[in-house]
Amino acid sequence: MILTVTLNAALDVTYDVPELTQHTSHRVRRVGRRAGGKGLNVARVLHQLGHATLATGYVAGPVGQSIVDDLDAAGIDHDFVPLVAGVSRQTVTVVDEASGDATVFLEPGPEVSESDWAAFLDRYDRLAARARAVVLSGSLPPGLPEDAYAQLARRTPGTSLVDTAGPALLAAARARADVLLPNAAELRESTGCLNPLDGAADLLEAGAGAVVVSLAADGLLAVTAAGAWRVPAVERLAGNPTGAGDALAAALAATADLPWPERLGTGVAWSAAAVPMPLAGEVDPDTLDRVRAAVVVDELEGPR
Amino acid sequence: MILTVTLNAALDVTYDVPELTQHTSHRVRRVGRRAGGKGLNVARVLHQLGHATLATGYVAGPVGQSIVDDLDAAGIDHDFVPLVAGVSRQTVTVVDEASGDATVFLEPGPEVSESDWAAFLDRYDRLAARARAVVLSGSLPPGLPEDAYAQLARRTPGTSLVDTAGPALLAAARARADVLLPNAAELRESTGCLNPLDGAADLLEAGAGAVVVSLAADGLLAVTAAGAWRVPAVERLAGNPTGAGDALAAALAATADLPWPERLGTGVAWSAAAVPMPLAGEVDPDTLDRVRAAVVVDELEGPR
Repeated sequence: MILTVTLNAALDVTYDVPELTQHTSHRVRRVGRRAGGKGLNVARVLHQLGHATLATGYVAGPVGQSIVDDLDAAGIDHDFVPLVAGVSRQTVTVVDEASGDATVFLEPGPEVSESDWAAFLDRYDRLAARARAVVLSGSLPPGLPEDAYAQLARRTPGTSLVDTAGPALLAAARARADVLLPNAAELRESTGCLNPLDGAADLLEAGAGAVVVSLAADGLLAVTAAGAWRVPAVERLAGNPTGAGDALAAALAATADLPWPERLGTGVAWSAAAVPMPLAGEVDPDTLDRVRAAVVVDELEGPR
Repeated sequence: MILTVTLNAALDVTYDVPELTQHTSHRVRRVGRRAGGKGLNVARVLHQLGHATLATGYVAGPVGQSIVDDLDAAGIDHDFVPLVAGVSRQTVTVVDEASGDATVFLEPGPEVSESDWAAFLDRYDRLAARARAVVLSGSLPPGLPEDAYAQLARRTPGTSLVDTAGPALLAAARARADVLLPNAAELRESTGCLNPLDGAADLLEAGAGAVVVSLAADGLLAVTAAGAWRVPAVERLAGNPTGAGDALAAALAATADLPWPERLGTGVAWSAAAVPMPLAGEVDPDTLDRVRAAVVVDELEGPR
């Protein structure tokens, strides 16, 4: 089983309106509601491709109930910790029907107390003990320590994968997370290195087991104790970068026991297959098969 | 007890953002959540001013749970009929912090089936039997017959007050509703009469017991079987017209057993007292006392 952690799970609400006009009233023509947050996108991709998965994190109040109802409807197993106070966050995306342009409102999420965090750590230890891999990704709700993912990575008996940025990324490296998943900009910001190979090497030196850097349209770069690889993108990536990153995390978790070239080829294929889908958390099987057959993984030489 | 009916109850969500910019993403700084809909505003005013009240209507899904949780927190008695399918609507109001300007998104509400309507009629008969007055106000959810308020008014043993517009207003008149509460524009649109005295007389002839027309800053006009009255506004009304109309409905329900001049003076006072409040469903006691002491009710002569 692969455990996905979504500490700031959301109900993603979508409103279709003819056209958004500032400071006026709009009758919404169509309302979409769906459980969201990066960890749940990872769980959806794993579930779609037949991998046993379990989603955890926090839920709170009636919005939290909507989140678990939606996961039930999608057939995704979950075991969330209820917060005593507050309400899970909603995101509201207003889509102009004519242009397809989106205007987005992100709630901060409920405040998490120290005892909520202790309750989560307890639940996490029980769930992570049964997981061959754990994916830790997405924003943190207010009140959690900045190194929350580092704390979780340190307690993970199986493979830990962490998709975060800033000081939390460095903390996860020091906590010896197995795989870090920054994009090039996040890696540069955290390490100060202009060259992603240098930045990845810094994180390895700090303690990370491997660093897989997404270079958007240029594919992937991986630096690990066993070697370094570059995987050029097979097709031009354009569209849904959130979905692509979450599918990459799902692929690297699903292939945790395989050699790195195999994992990276799978990662590029799943990631590419998320791009044509309008919603994060889904992949297109045809794109997946086509890209997986064409992908080439190049081993890099020289000093890391 | 005064029964308020809110068939399309809402969770009113407020987002404070520094400034709304079309087609960008916004981090919401403050989230407000409150049960809304015109009938619930009427119930809040009655509750604030010490009148026994009971709120009914439909609620559905987790958003419906948020609505009843908020009413519980406010101490407002309720007895809602749950819908089998769908989710109660939300309204989202985005407020620019600098200017205070609001951009509003209104969900249509859940689809109501014929059996849901039968279930409501059954509940309504039981509740209305205990009510000395019933207030029927606000939008209808999709699926309900256009004459829903007319059907309810016809089944009401006590005093029925209806705040609606268009063909539903005419239907309520024909159903012999006791008090209709259109504003001047709604009355003109329904009856085709430019003079509100003529329009109100038309609705009386159709079967209404009384018509109280809100003339915004010009006060009220009432045409009843017992006579006609004009009540000039005591203070300039500006601000919250929804709140003012709901407070008027609350006042006329609370004074259902009193003579018309008394009812209208109370109506103008409660209505004026809602204007300074930022949220509909609240009145300012000082404004109420000041306006109530100063209000003058003029009886109109001549043919109706």
